[in-house]
Amino acid sequence: MHHSNSPDASIPDFTTDVVVVGAGPAGLFQLFQLGLQGLACHVLEALPHPGGQCSQLYADKPIYDIPALLRVTGHELSEQLHQQLAPFAIHWHWGQTLEAIEEDGAGHWLVHTSQGHAIACKAVVLALGVGAFVARKPKLEHLDALLAEGRQAFLQSHDRQAAVAGQQVVVFGGDEAAVAKAIELAQSGAALAPARVSLLHRRDVFKADETALAQLNALREQGRIQVEIGQLQALNLHRETALQSLHILSPDGQSQTVPADVLLVYQGISPKLGALADWQLALEAKHILVNPATQATNRPGIYAVGDIASYPGKRKLIASAFHEAIMAAFAIAEQLQGKSPLTLYTTTHTVLLERLGQEPVAKA
Amino acid sequence: MHHSNSPDASIPDFTTDVVVVGAGPAGLFQLFQLGLQGLACHVLEALPHPGGQCSQLYADKPIYDIPALLRVTGHELSEQLHQQLAPFAIHWHWGQTLEAIEEDGAGHWLVHTSQGHAIACKAVVLALGVGAFVARKPKLEHLDALLAEGRQAFLQSHDRQAAVAGQQVVVFGGDEAAVAKAIELAQSGAALAPARVSLLHRRDVFKADETALAQLNALREQGRIQVEIGQLQALNLHRETALQSLHILSPDGQSQTVPADVLLVYQGISPKLGALADWQLALEAKHILVNPATQATNRPGIYAVGDIASYPGKRKLIASAFHEAIMAAFAIAEQLQGKSPLTLYTTTHTVLLERLGQEPVAKA
Ligand SMILES: Cc1cc2nc3c(=O)[nH]c(=O)nc-3n(C[C@H](O)[C@H](O)[C@H](O)COP(=O)(O)OP(=O)(O)OC[C@H]3O[C@@H](n4cnc5c(N)ncnc54)[C@H](O)[C@@H]3O)c2cc1C
Ligand SMILES: Cc1cc2nc3c(=O)[nH]c(=O)nc-3n(C[C@H](O)[C@H](O)[C@H](O)COP(=O)(O)OP(=O)(O)OC[C@H]3O[C@@H](n4cnc5c(N)ncnc54)[C@H](O)[C@@H]3O)c2cc1C
Repeated sequence: MHHSNSPDASIPDFTTDVVVVGAGPAGLFQLFQLGLQGLACHVLEALPHPGGQCSQLYADKPIYDIPALLRVTGHELSEQLHQQLAPFAIHWHWGQTLEAIEEDGAGHWLVHTSQGHAIACKAVVLALGVGAFVARKPKLEHLDALLAEGRQAFLQSHDRQAAVAGQQVVVFGGDEAAVAKAIELAQSGAALAPARVSLLHRRDVFKADETALAQLNALREQGRIQVEIGQLQALNLHRETALQSLHILSPDGQSQTVPADVLLVYQGISPKLGALADWQLALEAKHILVNPATQATNRPGIYAVGDIASYPGKRKLIASAFHEAIMAAFAIAEQLQGKSPLTLYTTTHTVLLERLGQEPVAKA
Repeated sequence: MHHSNSPDASIPDFTTDVVVVGAGPAGLFQLFQLGLQGLACHVLEALPHPGGQCSQLYADKPIYDIPALLRVTGHELSEQLHQQLAPFAIHWHWGQTLEAIEEDGAGHWLVHTSQGHAIACKAVVLALGVGAFVARKPKLEHLDALLAEGRQAFLQSHDRQAAVAGQQVVVFGGDEAAVAKAIELAQSGAALAPARVSLLHRRDVFKADETALAQLNALREQGRIQVEIGQLQALNLHRETALQSLHILSPDGQSQTVPADVLLVYQGISPKLGALADWQLALEAKHILVNPATQATNRPGIYAVGDIASYPGKRKLIASAFHEAIMAAFAIAEQLQGKSPLTLYTTTHTVLLERLGQEPVAKA
């Protein structure tokens, strides 16, 4: 990944046609529709994976009202929408949030990301859903530096990057995900197993289903998970760089030290919408007001689709988001090309089939 | 099937909440969304099968822009939309067209079908697409009576009902479908094989792909298909009831007789829209004008979705029809229940899961 800030704020790191913000179902199908229109896209997504609410809030639950999909889990739906984008050369910015949208004065937009990138584009589609899914984290000295370094501390949303074999690992949290993570670590195969697995929570009550709680208790009795109860007070580092242990305050007021080479922060992931009002967008009850014929907001070149968008009769459903993505793609193509594109069929139209990387079908 | 006309035109044969007209992708997903709202539905479809344009015009061609379906043929899409309706007790009227919509004076509608049924309902959804797919047929004495009887003459759209074993069968037509049908009949297994297969067309030029033409020629040389060239002039019946032969006029002006126990009329299937204006619906360039927040037409209780509907920015695409079906279902539920229904999720809401015949998911 490219991490440097632009040396000069006015020179973009990237230039493209459209920036889509959010890779939930709305953003994903938006990218597909923009691809069909032949437009180049970048996409920002706070999480390191696609799917938005579907993958974050109900990955394993079945959905029944996606047209022609009799039953599909949130995870499967996300995967299928993601796979459908394979034909298109999309530039993905995972784990990055939209920080600011700036007009460049020449009718273009400059989109600034949380990692300091600036992307110049002609149109922006806000597919923000219920907001950027970001992991909660405690305010502790050194933590941000360790997270940024990405070797000794990880947020829940990014924990797959953690190398834990042979390490003393602390999972910091008490909910279902935290318990599941501790169990997963304690049960990992020899080659991948940590040297020590601790589960740190402020009190000895864990939120998880009965099966998980029974597993936790069994592993705890076998000494394969150390449960540590207390408030996390400080990270103890050797020479200001190497995490060594955690300083905790137990409920009875005693100070304690928990050995830690790797810290996994499992304090929950929750959506943060940010200050839409700062971007001078017309809002209606905290949603972005759009024209349903185009999904255009009050600011020319900025569009909104999916749960974040509002128009008369709006229903926050995935199949509606798909239609909104179609409307926005046609409106953006018209904005960029100066004329309204024809409605073409993917079954029969050569240009679309080429864009999809498919052989045109022979005429009967 | 129930074929009688109502003895008294003011007494409906059926009473329901909603009549959907058309079982293309728009009508099919409309039935699903109405089912989720808990409403009872009847549906009229001119063809004897679901899918509209998808199954009639491009059954074997792949579509690529259905969200989360990477590649699906027109036929597969129709089937999947149809299967998704399994949980709901829908009353299907296949092979019937909408003839008239009449106000009953008490705020309800009376829908009249081509088979003489009258269905009383509170709302009608017109999902007419490009019109009712009806098979073309020549104007010939006795033909309508034979078609109605359904034993000796069949239209292309209904030919699956024909019992042809041991019969002298004439396929009347010259296009791809006619050629394919003649080949299928000539190749049917012994138990099902007709005694004689004729292919009757006005000239000795057939429209089909090379493979089909080669097969036709081979079967013709083997005497398994008799190609008859000429204009169909009359049906010869024994005692006015039993089809015996066809009277044709060959290109050189000679009269000829072709033996026939069963006549399959393969003159093409084409969409007929009928006189929308007669129903006092506000139109825009031959499409029904709707409010996109509700899909309501100018007549209270009549809605339109899919290709037939027009509103600012409308694109004739399947994924847009799906969204329109959602909007109409919520608007109809509001019309019937007097208040706007909540947006509920099929993943989690007990009432929806019950309507879908699914076990509610256990809470974590
Ligand atoms: C439990 C549950 C069950 C549901 N069941 C159904 C159902 O059965 N049927 C149905 O149709 N709908 C259902 N829904 C609703 C459906 O999930 C939403 O309508 C859908 O996810 C909205 O898609 P979206 O892309 O607009 O937003 P989201 O899914 O919320 O995705 C938005 C994405 O944008 C990212 N993002 C936001 N802001 C920023 C930013 N500033 N920078 C970078 N990234 C950002 C977020 O991280 C997120 O990944 C359900 C929802 C829930 C919670
Ligand atoms: C070759 C081709 C390729 C296509 N490719 C794509 C594609 O890749 N992607 C895409 O999104 N769209 C595509 N389309 C368009 C898509 O097929 C239509 O948008 C879609 O079929 C419209 O659905 P509908 O239900 O509104 O109408 P239709 O599919 O036309 O169905 C209407 C149904 O209503 C019935 N009906 C009409 N009037 C009456 C009446 N009075 N009484 C009883 N029944 C009646 C008809 O018989 C028909 O079955 C394509 C179309 C064609 C022709």
